[in-house]
Amino acid sequence: MSEGVGAAAPGLSDAPTQSRAARGKASPSAPHDRANQKAQRERVVLAYSGGLDTSVAIPFLADHMGAEVIAVSVDLGQGGEDIDAIRQRALDCGAVEAEVVDAREEFAAEYCLPAVRANAFYMDRYPLVCALSRPLIVKHLVAAARKYRGTVVSHGCTGKGNDQVRFEVGIGALAPDLKIVAPARDFAWTRDKAIVLAEERGLPIDVSHRSPYSIDQNLWGRAVETGFLEDIWNAPIEELYSYTANPAEPRDPDEIVITFDAGVPVAIDGETVTPYQAILELNRRAGAQGVGRIDMVEDRLVGIKSREIYEAPGAIALITAHQELEGVTVERDTARFKRSVDQRWAELVYDGLWYSPLKRALDVFIDETQRHVTGEVRMTLHGGRAVVTGRRSEASLYDFNLATYDTGDTFDQSLAKGFVELFGLPSRMAAARDARLGQ
Amino acid sequence: MSEGVGAAAPGLSDAPTQSRAARGKASPSAPHDRANQKAQRERVVLAYSGGLDTSVAIPFLADHMGAEVIAVSVDLGQGGEDIDAIRQRALDCGAVEAEVVDAREEFAAEYCLPAVRANAFYMDRYPLVCALSRPLIVKHLVAAARKYRGTVVSHGCTGKGNDQVRFEVGIGALAPDLKIVAPARDFAWTRDKAIVLAEERGLPIDVSHRSPYSIDQNLWGRAVETGFLEDIWNAPIEELYSYTANPAEPRDPDEIVITFDAGVPVAIDGETVTPYQAILELNRRAGAQGVGRIDMVEDRLVGIKSREIYEAPGAIALITAHQELEGVTVERDTARFKRSVDQRWAELVYDGLWYSPLKRALDVFIDETQRHVTGEVRMTLHGGRAVVTGRRSEASLYDFNLATYDTGDTFDQSLAKGFVELFGLPSRMAAARDARLGQ
Amino acid sequence: MSEGVGAAAPGLSDAPTQSRAARGKASPSAPHDRANQKAQRERVVLAYSGGLDTSVAIPFLADHMGAEVIAVSVDLGQGGEDIDAIRQRALDCGAVEAEVVDAREEFAAEYCLPAVRANAFYMDRYPLVCALSRPLIVKHLVAAARKYRGTVVSHGCTGKGNDQVRFEVGIGALAPDLKIVAPARDFAWTRDKAIVLAEERGLPIDVSHRSPYSIDQNLWGRAVETGFLEDIWNAPIEELYSYTANPAEPRDPDEIVITFDAGVPVAIDGETVTPYQAILELNRRAGAQGVGRIDMVEDRLVGIKSREIYEAPGAIALITAHQELEGVTVERDTARFKRSVDQRWAELVYDGLWYSPLKRALDVFIDETQRHVTGEVRMTLHGGRAVVTGRRSEASLYDFNLATYDTGDTFDQSLAKGFVELFGLPSRMAAARDARLGQ
Amino acid sequence: MSEGVGAAAPGLSDAPTQSRAARGKASPSAPHDRANQKAQRERVVLAYSGGLDTSVAIPFLADHMGAEVIAVSVDLGQGGEDIDAIRQRALDCGAVEAEVVDAREEFAAEYCLPAVRANAFYMDRYPLVCALSRPLIVKHLVAAARKYRGTVVSHGCTGKGNDQVRFEVGIGALAPDLKIVAPARDFAWTRDKAIVLAEERGLPIDVSHRSPYSIDQNLWGRAVETGFLEDIWNAPIEELYSYTANPAEPRDPDEIVITFDAGVPVAIDGETVTPYQAILELNRRAGAQGVGRIDMVEDRLVGIKSREIYEAPGAIALITAHQELEGVTVERDTARFKRSVDQRWAELVYDGLWYSPLKRALDVFIDETQRHVTGEVRMTLHGGRAVVTGRRSEASLYDFNLATYDTGDTFDQSLAKGFVELFGLPSRMAAARDARLGQ
Repeated sequence: MSEGVGAAAPGLSDAPTQSRAARGKASPSAPHDRANQKAQRERVVLAYSGGLDTSVAIPFLADHMGAEVIAVSVDLGQGGEDIDAIRQRALDCGAVEAEVVDAREEFAAEYCLPAVRANAFYMDRYPLVCALSRPLIVKHLVAAARKYRGTVVSHGCTGKGNDQVRFEVGIGALAPDLKIVAPARDFAWTRDKAIVLAEERGLPIDVSHRSPYSIDQNLWGRAVETGFLEDIWNAPIEELYSYTANPAEPRDPDEIVITFDAGVPVAIDGETVTPYQAILELNRRAGAQGVGRIDMVEDRLVGIKSREIYEAPGAIALITAHQELEGVTVERDTARFKRSVDQRWAELVYDGLWYSPLKRALDVFIDETQRHVTGEVRMTLHGGRAVVTGRRSEASLYDFNLATYDTGDTFDQSLAKGFVELFGLPSRMAAARDARLGQ
Repeated sequence: MSEGVGAAAPGLSDAPTQSRAARGKASPSAPHDRANQKAQRERVVLAYSGGLDTSVAIPFLADHMGAEVIAVSVDLGQGGEDIDAIRQRALDCGAVEAEVVDAREEFAAEYCLPAVRANAFYMDRYPLVCALSRPLIVKHLVAAARKYRGTVVSHGCTGKGNDQVRFEVGIGALAPDLKIVAPARDFAWTRDKAIVLAEERGLPIDVSHRSPYSIDQNLWGRAVETGFLEDIWNAPIEELYSYTANPAEPRDPDEIVITFDAGVPVAIDGETVTPYQAILELNRRAGAQGVGRIDMVEDRLVGIKSREIYEAPGAIALITAHQELEGVTVERDTARFKRSVDQRWAELVYDGLWYSPLKRALDVFIDETQRHVTGEVRMTLHGGRAVVTGRRSEASLYDFNLATYDTGDTFDQSLAKGFVELFGLPSRMAAARDARLGQ
Repeated sequence: MSEGVGAAAPGLSDAPTQSRAARGKASPSAPHDRANQKAQRERVVLAYSGGLDTSVAIPFLADHMGAEVIAVSVDLGQGGEDIDAIRQRALDCGAVEAEVVDAREEFAAEYCLPAVRANAFYMDRYPLVCALSRPLIVKHLVAAARKYRGTVVSHGCTGKGNDQVRFEVGIGALAPDLKIVAPARDFAWTRDKAIVLAEERGLPIDVSHRSPYSIDQNLWGRAVETGFLEDIWNAPIEELYSYTANPAEPRDPDEIVITFDAGVPVAIDGETVTPYQAILELNRRAGAQGVGRIDMVEDRLVGIKSREIYEAPGAIALITAHQELEGVTVERDTARFKRSVDQRWAELVYDGLWYSPLKRALDVFIDETQRHVTGEVRMTLHGGRAVVTGRRSEASLYDFNLATYDTGDTFDQSLAKGFVELFGLPSRMAAARDARLGQ
Repeated sequence: MSEGVGAAAPGLSDAPTQSRAARGKASPSAPHDRANQKAQRERVVLAYSGGLDTSVAIPFLADHMGAEVIAVSVDLGQGGEDIDAIRQRALDCGAVEAEVVDAREEFAAEYCLPAVRANAFYMDRYPLVCALSRPLIVKHLVAAARKYRGTVVSHGCTGKGNDQVRFEVGIGALAPDLKIVAPARDFAWTRDKAIVLAEERGLPIDVSHRSPYSIDQNLWGRAVETGFLEDIWNAPIEELYSYTANPAEPRDPDEIVITFDAGVPVAIDGETVTPYQAILELNRRAGAQGVGRIDMVEDRLVGIKSREIYEAPGAIALITAHQELEGVTVERDTARFKRSVDQRWAELVYDGLWYSPLKRALDVFIDETQRHVTGEVRMTLHGGRAVVTGRRSEASLYDFNLATYDTGDTFDQSLAKGFVELFGLPSRMAAARDARLGQ
C-alpha cells in the first residue's frame, strides 16, 4: 500500500502534493534512496480531457516532478471529440501511456440509476450531472495507478469548484496512499499562462477559439457556467443549450411508457433497455421536447454560491416517472422518511462523498425501499414538460375499493371518528392548556 | 368554557358527537336540566357550502338534534355562485342565521403566504390547496359559535378524507369545549339518501345534474377527484381544468417580475400588490399559460392512497420564484435544514395540525430564515412552465467577485487544499480502515 | 357508541372484531353460513398470560363468540410462575389447546439486539422494554393461528395503552386476514366484572390479592405503572423494584469487559456468550449494582402522557457500551445521521410498527453501519452507574498519531487554515451581508 | 507549504493572517503604506489566558508583526489564578493594554442557559463545555478591537483542535474585516520553543512544572485531555477531576428542587437565583455527589477523533431536570421534532457556528417550544447520579384523569379501535401487498 510513497521523487517533498502528515499511518517515513529514485521515475496518472489545461499539464508534470505521465480519459457519453484523437493527443503531448476507458454502461447502471432511485436533486433542482461522474473517473484513475504503478494522481480542477473535492476525497477513499497534484490550482495557472506553455512546447492544441463558457457534459446531462451568466440577472440564451430543443417551439407531443423493476427502468414503450439505453433514449426524446433545462444559483461545497445552467432531459424524465411510481408503491411513513434520506444522499454526492460510509448506508436503505417500485408510468413529453398521465403496478398500494366514493367502497367510515379524536388529542390538550393559562 | 356542554340537548347523549370522555376536564358531567333545555335549544354552527349535502344537513340537524342551525359560509375566493344566493338558500332550508364571511385577504395573507415562505409541497408536489383553507374556515366557525352561543359545530365531510381531520382537530385546538357532528359520516349518508331528503323537504336545491367529479376550489387552487380518475392509469382530460388554459396550445410567453420583501410578494412588475392581489394576478397570468397542473397519487392521513388532480397556477409560480430567491439569499446550512422544516410544515398542515404547537414553532423558524429573502425574480410563464430567468437582491449572498473565473476573482485558491484535505479526512480514514481489515 | 358493542349479536359478522371493510381484499367476502358455523366453530387464538383478565377471557370468548379458544403463552424470560402451571390453568379455564413457546433466545437475538444496535431509547430514555416484546408475541400468535386454523386473535389489552396498537398493527402486518377481538377493551371490562365472572365460573384463579401496580416484565426489563405513581410528583419507592438492587447501598464495584462483533455482544470478560446469555449476565451484574432504573413521563401513541417506572439493567449497560464503541468505530457523518435513524427506529417500535416497511429499511441502514462496530469496551458497574472506562478495537478510527499532542504527531496543522477559512465562509458572508444591511 | 509561513515578511501584507481575498468586499483593499505603518503601528487584540503560550505570544507578535498587543482576558468562572495577576503579567510581557472582562453572568444567562433549553449534548454526551465559551470570548475580543482600534485578532489555538475554528469562524461572523493570526498554529510552535522564547525574554512565567494534561475550564464545566488519556483503553484516574468528588465514596444523598420558568431555572429549593447562581449552586451540590463525569471519544470538526474527559455537574443536573420538565409540558410532535433541532443545535455550537444564521433560526424555534416549560422538578443527587423523582407544573400536559386506570378515568376506550385500525392501515396494506407478491 505504501511503497509508492516510499518511491517519491526528490522534488516531491516540497511539491504541492497532499500532505503526507494528515494521511496517518499510510505514510511511511522510510528514508529515500536517491539512487533508486533516479533509476525509477515517479509515475503520475492524469485525468485527461483532451483540452488545453490537461494537455499542458502533461509536459508540465513531466518537467516539474521529473515524472512519467499516464493520461487516462474516461468515456461517460460526453460525445464531442473522437476518443482515439484524444488518446493520440495525449501521446503527442508527451504522455508515456494514454488509456481510454469506455465507462458508459457502468456510468449509467452504477452511478446514474442510483440517482434515479434516490430522486437525487441537490437543492431540489440539480440532478448531479457533474457530481455523479467524478467518482467513476476516480475509480478508473485509481485502477490505472495500480496497473501502471503510479504514485500520484493529477487532475485539472481549480481551487474554487466542487470537482477538486470530489476528485481528492474520492481518491482518498479508494487509495489513501496516492498523492495528488492539481497543477491549475496548486500552481495558480491562468488560461493565458497555459496558452504560453502550449505554444512554447508546440503542443498540438488549437488555442485560437475559446468558448466563453465553461462546459461539462456526459450521459446524465450538461452543465454550462461562467461568461455573461455570472450576472445572475441575465437570462440564459438559446445558444447555451445543446441537449435540449427550444421548449417554446411548437411541435407534437410524445407519449412514452417507462417500465420500472425495483426502481430501475427496464423497458421503454415495451422494449427492454439497458440502463444506458434508457438514459440515451430519454435524452433523445425528452431533449427533443425541450425537457430538462435548469437555471439556478447553487451552494458550492467550498462555501460560495455560483450560477449554473444545466440540461438533463433524461434525468428529469426518469426521476419524475420514478417519483410517481414511488407515490403508488411506497408506504407513507417510508416515503416521508425517504425524503430526508434522498436529500442527504444528494448532498453527500454533491459534496464528493460518493465513497463514504454514510453514502453506502443510505444506499442500502434506498435499495430496501425499492423492492416494490415496479410497474409502468406513462408520460407526455411536450413543451419542456415531462408530465405523468398514468401509472399501474402489480405492487400498487392504491386500492380502488378503499379510495372510491362509488359503489363498492369498502372503507369503514365509522373507524374515522376514533382515529380523528385520538390523532388530535395531543394538539387539543396543548390548546386547552394554553387557554387555561391565558394564552 | 364548558357551559355549552352543560346545555346539551336530551338526544345528544347518544348522538354521534365527539366523545366527551376523551376531552378530559373540559367536559363536566353536570346533570341535565331538561326543563331548561327545552326552553333554550342547542345551537349548531354548520360549515355551509350551498351544495346538496350541507343544505340537507340543515333540516336534518334541526330535527335529529332538536337544534337551531346557524349556517356559516366563508368566501376564500372560490368564485362560483353568488354569496348572497348561498346565504338565502341556507335560510330557506331552515337555518335560523346564515352568515357569510369574506375571508379572501385573510386567506391570502395568513394562510397562503406562509405556504410560500415554507415552499409548501406535500409529497414534493401538492401545494396544499384544500389543506390551507380548512383552518381558516374552522376559525370562522368557532367565531360564529362564540357569537351565536353555539355548542356544536357541524361539517359535511365524509369519513375517508383528510378534511374531517382538519376540521375536527382544528376545532379541538381552538375550542376544545365544542362538540362536533358530521352527518354525512356519522349517519352514513349516501347521495341518494340526501336527494330523497331534499325532495321530501322540498329544499330549494337542484339535484338533477351532478358533476361526476368531486371538486374543491379557492384562491390558492382547485382540486378534482373521483370519477374516471379513480383508475390511476387514466389520463386527465382537458375538461377537468378550470383555472388553467391548455399548456399545449401555442401562445406568446409572458414575462413577469415578482418583488419579495422578507419572503412575501409585495409587487408584480413594479406595481405594489396585496397578498390577495398577488395570488389573483398570478393565477390569472400563470393560469393563462397553463402553469400549475398536478396529477398525483397522494398519501391521505387516514391511511389510504388517492388520486388527485390539482390546478394551482399562482401557487406554483410564487413558490418557484420564492425558492429561487432563497437560493440567492439564504446561507447553505440554513437552506439544507430548512428543507426538512419545510417538509414537516407541509406534512403538519396536510395532516390538519395547523393550530398545533409544532406548527407554531416551525413558523417562527421559517420567519427567522426569511428576514433577507428580499429582492426580485424574473420569470417566463409559458407552455405550462414557470421558469426563473433572473434574480437580483440587495441581500444576495452570491458574490460575483468570489464566483467569477474572470479578472477580478478574489477567491484565494490556496485555501482549498487544506479544506479538501480535512473535509475528506473522516471518509479517508474509514476507507483506510476498511482496506486494512480487508474489505 | 359503546352500547352498540354491548348489543353485538352472537354471530361473528356483527361482533366487535376488526372491521373487515378496511382490511381490503384480504378479507374473505363469503357470507357466513350459520349452520356451517355450528358444525365448525371458529377458533380464537388468545395471548394468554395466566392472569385474571386473560383467564376470564377464555370462557367469555367461548361463550360470546361460540368459539374454541387456543391459549398461547410466550416465554420471554419474564420469570415468575412456572410455565407448565400457566398452561394447565388455560386448559382448566376451558381452552381447547394451550401452547407455551420458549422464545427467550429468539427474543434476545432478534428483538433485543437490534435495539442495542439502534441505541434504542424512546424519548432518549426508555429502552422499549414492553414495546420489543409485542411483535414477537404477535409472531407466535399468528403461527398458532396458522397451526390450529384460527381465524381470530385475541389479547387482553385495554384501549388506552400502546400495547393494543402493537398487537393489532403487528397482526395486521403479519396476517391481514385474521380478525381481532380485545375483550377488556371492546366490552369495557373492569377488574370487578372480571372477578365476578371468574367466581361465577369457578375459575382456578386467586383473585384475593392484587398488586396496586400494573407490571410487565421480560428479559429486556421491567415496567411498573399506576397506583400512587399516577401522581407524578410522588417519588418511586424501593419496593417497586425487582430487577435492580438499591443503587444507594454501599458495595464494591464490578468491572466488566464486553466484546462486540458487528454491533453484537459476543463475549463477556472473554467468555463467549449467546445474546440471551449476554443480556441475562448483564441483568444480573448491572442489576446487582442498581444500574438501569428509569422514572419518566412518556408520550403514548394514543395521545396521552403517562408515568412509567422501568428497570432495564442489561439494556442500559449494553447500549451504553455499544454507543461508546460506535463513537470509536463509526465515522462522523454516519454517526450524526444515525442519530436521527436511531430516534425514528425507537419511535416506530414504540408505536407498534415493528413489521412496517420503514422499520425494515431502517434496519438495513443500521446493519450497514455496524460492520465495523467490533472491539472491546470496559465498564465499571457501580452505584447505579454503568461507566465506560476503556475501549479498543482493530476497527478503531481513533488514530493516536493524529490525535496526540506529543512527539509523533502526524497531523499537518498547516492544512487547518484553509479548512477554517472555507468552512466558515458561508457564515461570514451572511454576517457581512447582515452588517451591510444594517442588522 | 509551510515554509511559506516561515518566510513571512514582517509587513502584514505577507503575514499568515486570514486571506483577505476570500473575505470579500468587507476587506479594505487599500494598499498598505509602509511608512505610514511605522508611524501608526498595527494593533493586535490577543485572547490572553496568562499561560505560557499566550504570554510568549505578546512579545512575539509585537516583534514579528511590528504591532502593539492588547491582551484581553475573559472571566467565565474558570477560577484559578487571580484575574489582576493575569492582567499584570500581560503588561509585564509587553502588552500595551491589558483588559479583563467579568463575563460570568453573561456567560451563564446567554450561553449556558440556551444550552439547557436545547438539552445540548454533542454526540448525546458532551455538554459543550468549551464550545460554549468561545463565542463569548470572541464577542469581547471584537469589542476590544473596536475600542482600541485593533485590526488583527490573535489566539493561542493549535491547528488540530476545534477552538481555532470557533475563534475564527466567530470572528468572521462578528467582524469580517478583522484579520486573524494564530502564532502557535501558523508558526508551528512547540512547547519547547515557547520555553526558549520565554527564557530569552525573561518573561515572568514559571515554566518549570507542567501538567501532563491539557485543561480548559469555566462555569459550565471542565475538560481534560492528552497525556496517558491518549491511549483510549486507559481508564481515567481520580486525580484528573477537580469539579466533582469521587462518586464511589459513600455519603448522604442531596435532594434538590429546581424551578423553571419558560425553560430557565429561576429558583433552587424555593430560593430565587440568577442563571449564574443556579449553575454555581448546582456545580457545588451535584459536584459534591460526583455527578457529571464524562469520558468519551469525540468527533472533532477537523476530522479526527479525540479522547476527552469532562466534568460538568451543574450542566448535567440542569439538563436532566429540564428534559424531564419538557417531557411533562411539551406536546409529542413538538418533542419528537425538537430532538432533531437539539441535535443540530449542539452540532452547530460544537462546530463553531454560534453566530451563524441557522443557529439563530434554531434558537427561535427552541424559544417557542419553551413557553410552557415551567414548573418544578425534584431530583436526588447521589453517587454520581442526578435522578428526577418528581415533577409538577401548572402547564402540565399530563392529565391524571386520562392516564389513570382507577376510578375517574375519562378516557373513552371505544375510540381506540378506529384509531388503531386507521393508524395501522398503511402498514397492513403494504404487508398484504408483500404477501400477494410472495414475499
